Amino acid sequence: MASESSSKIDQTATVPKGFQFAGVTCGIKASGKPDLALIVGDGPLVSAGVYTTNQIVAAPVLLCRKRTPASKTRAVVVNSGNANACTGEQGERDADEMSRMVAVHLGCDPGDVLVMSTGIIGRPLPMAKLRAGIDDAVGKLQSDHDAFVRASTAIMTTDAFRKSIQRSIVIDGRTYCVAAMAKGAGMIAPNMATMLAVVVTDAPLDQNDVVDALRYVANRSFNRVSVDGHMSTNDSLVLLSSGAAGGDRLQGERLDKYQGFLCETCIELAKMLVDDGEGATHIMEMRVSGAESDADANEIARVIGESLLVKTAITGGDPNWGRIVSAAGYAGRPIKPLLTSLQILGVTLYENGTPIAFDAKSVSQLIRESTTVVMELCVGDGPGQATRWASDITTEYVRFNSEYTT
Amino acid sequence: MASESSSKIDQTATVPKGFQFAGVTCGIKASGKPDLALIVGDGPLVSAGVYTTNQIVAAPVLLCRKRTPASKTRAVVVNSGNANACTGEQGERDADEMSRMVAVHLGCDPGDVLVMSTGIIGRPLPMAKLRAGIDDAVGKLQSDHDAFVRASTAIMTTDAFRKSIQRSIVIDGRTYCVAAMAKGAGMIAPNMATMLAVVVTDAPLDQNDVVDALRYVANRSFNRVSVDGHMSTNDSLVLLSSGAAGGDRLQGERLDKYQGFLCETCIELAKMLVDDGEGATHIMEMRVSGAESDADANEIARVIGESLLVKTAITGGDPNWGRIVSAAGYAGRPIKPLLTSLQILGVTLYENGTPIAFDAKSVSQLIRESTTVVMELCVGDGPGQATRWASDITTEYVRFNSEYTT
Repeated sequence: MASESSSKIDQTATVPKGFQFAGVTCGIKASGKPDLALIVGDGPLVSAGVYTTNQIVAAPVLLCRKRTPASKTRAVVVNSGNANACTGEQGERDADEMSRMVAVHLGCDPGDVLVMSTGIIGRPLPMAKLRAGIDDAVGKLQSDHDAFVRASTAIMTTDAFRKSIQRSIVIDGRTYCVAAMAKGAGMIAPNMATMLAVVVTDAPLDQNDVVDALRYVANRSFNRVSVDGHMSTNDSLVLLSSGAAGGDRLQGERLDKYQGFLCETCIELAKMLVDDGEGATHIMEMRVSGAESDADANEIARVIGESLLVKTAITGGDPNWGRIVSAAGYAGRPIKPLLTSLQILGVTLYENGTPIAFDAKSVSQLIRESTTVVMELCVGDGPGQATRWASDITTEYVRFNSEYTT
Repeated sequence: MASESSSKIDQTATVPKGFQFAGVTCGIKASGKPDLALIVGDGPLVSAGVYTTNQIVAAPVLLCRKRTPASKTRAVVVNSGNANACTGEQGERDADEMSRMVAVHLGCDPGDVLVMSTGIIGRPLPMAKLRAGIDDAVGKLQSDHDAFVRASTAIMTTDAFRKSIQRSIVIDGRTYCVAAMAKGAGMIAPNMATMLAVVVTDAPLDQNDVVDALRYVANRSFNRVSVDGHMSTNDSLVLLSSGAAGGDRLQGERLDKYQGFLCETCIELAKMLVDDGEGATHIMEMRVSGAESDADANEIARVIGESLLVKTAITGGDPNWGRIVSAAGYAGRPIKPLLTSLQILGVTLYENGTPIAFDAKSVSQLIRESTTVVMELCVGDGPGQATRWASDITTEYVRFNSEYTT
């Protein structure tokens, strides 16, 4: 749905205090598009990260795993155009050198610098270009909205549009800001979606708070989206807090309120990944209820969202309840077939194990006209529920990924 | 690869003794193509079956589960055009009635008749048409090759070509025959591939032999193929033995030899399902070795074969080792990245965790020109190995499944 582009920015929200951003072009991409982003804290940042669970893992992920969580992170450097994956020991040295280049400029320990890379895999990083790019980026660091946008743009690869979001919340009279950027349009699967994301906030949080919040948020946002079910070697999500909004550390109800706000913000950002799924024409929103547990509901929703037959049905505007219900049946989690019911966009197609007569033409029309196709599937009388998002699949996805060359 | 059609029949092999077959048109399919098959034993047959593990399960599967294994099965009746799935209690009554109609003609117990259905789901079976069809089929039962072919044709749905195979083996001077038919081109996933298959043999086997042989064979053939990873509600595979070849019950080495022969025959038949994968242009053969166990190797091969990014790469003739290796990395089974190596069609692309320089153009050409693309992936130094087959995916698959209407 590339045509519906445009990042969603809350104009009333400002950039979180205590951060500077830069996005520059250093020539890694043949296209000449921006390919180096730098996010820097004015002072030490509290940080946490979650990373791909793929056993084939890129060098920058190995580095970040060692360096988070932390309470004195200073910067994140991100390059696009080259993933520094499957690059062996040289790749690990290169990722470390990227952090050293940044550390020299900031006068900090290299261990306080995080590194992310995305792009083609199996090729060594062009370190001379990166060195020049980092020099350039450091000189252009700024704390305003435009600089944040430039950084968000520089992490893109096959993305049809930039994915960034800025939000603020007022709790007990004090304003806390979040700004988050992400990239990814293909190789999107849960745990993590194939993507990079950097979330910065000025809320006063300690290291445990940041770790807890990130785990909570990741499992409800980025880990709930699929484009093609292929988990990448580079998936990384980091949360950085400057605490510069001031005031006491958030605790109790105030912390819960903040965490809910952060989660809503990240869900909105994660849905942009699905919205930009390569070739996609619909967002499928699977709301599963009645399962034995939330984890069961989540797995059932995942299997439905990754079924090629469900995806192609939605692409074609076909209210094919059989494909959806049968996908739920093979998800490997218990369901109660005689208590299974399905609604698509509010229309009941299947109830308590029995197909219901419906006007196929009008439901088909409804699907075709909807950007987001909500499927509400009840699989029993249990308390478990979960919502996930996935893109549909089109001939365009197949064409794009057949023609992409190594 | 529909254009490469034609069933592979060993002209020297005859139809197993002790069986009769019919395939007729009773009008379930709007197309007017054959849609009812009958396979009947001259006397009692020893039988075993394996069925879909989907929790949403069609009525005929519920019936067959109760009626196999058995030592006095008399017939299998199969209709195409209607799956009798998601049809509630009426569906169960209808499946039972199909078996009663056949039993009346044969003078046997309805419990000795197996039933399979395939086609559209959620619609009641047209019982009047089935009754007339069964009457017709009983009158046309014959024991020759042509009758077997007619039965094989009548179980087809979206198949581009008929899938049947006849083979014989001589053990200690005695000839044993196998004839097997299958259908399926979409909704193909392991456990079982979405398909119906009936395998008949005249080898003298007892009930335990048939159960053991079927389990052995299913796990190495039909459970090792994927088209789209969607497990159907109707998957059924039955093995029927008449014992009419004569001689003593096969035991020991003779039984092992026969079982190996049966397995090779079923692998050949199962590969026809992949060959006919909707819109497919290549068979991907994943040979995984070096895993900790055969089960791990099998799961890694499955995940590679179901990765959309791997499928599209093969479609496009792209030797994209990164997608293959990263799919192995997220299969959830232990691999050793530094001992991971990959060959495609004999060319080494990745060795011990490092990309190897290769002539991308010539390997791409090689992939484009090959019907079967063999990928040999070593993931460590363990003893586990497995081979699986999957189809690639094309815009044609997406178009076909987007345009199919409920």
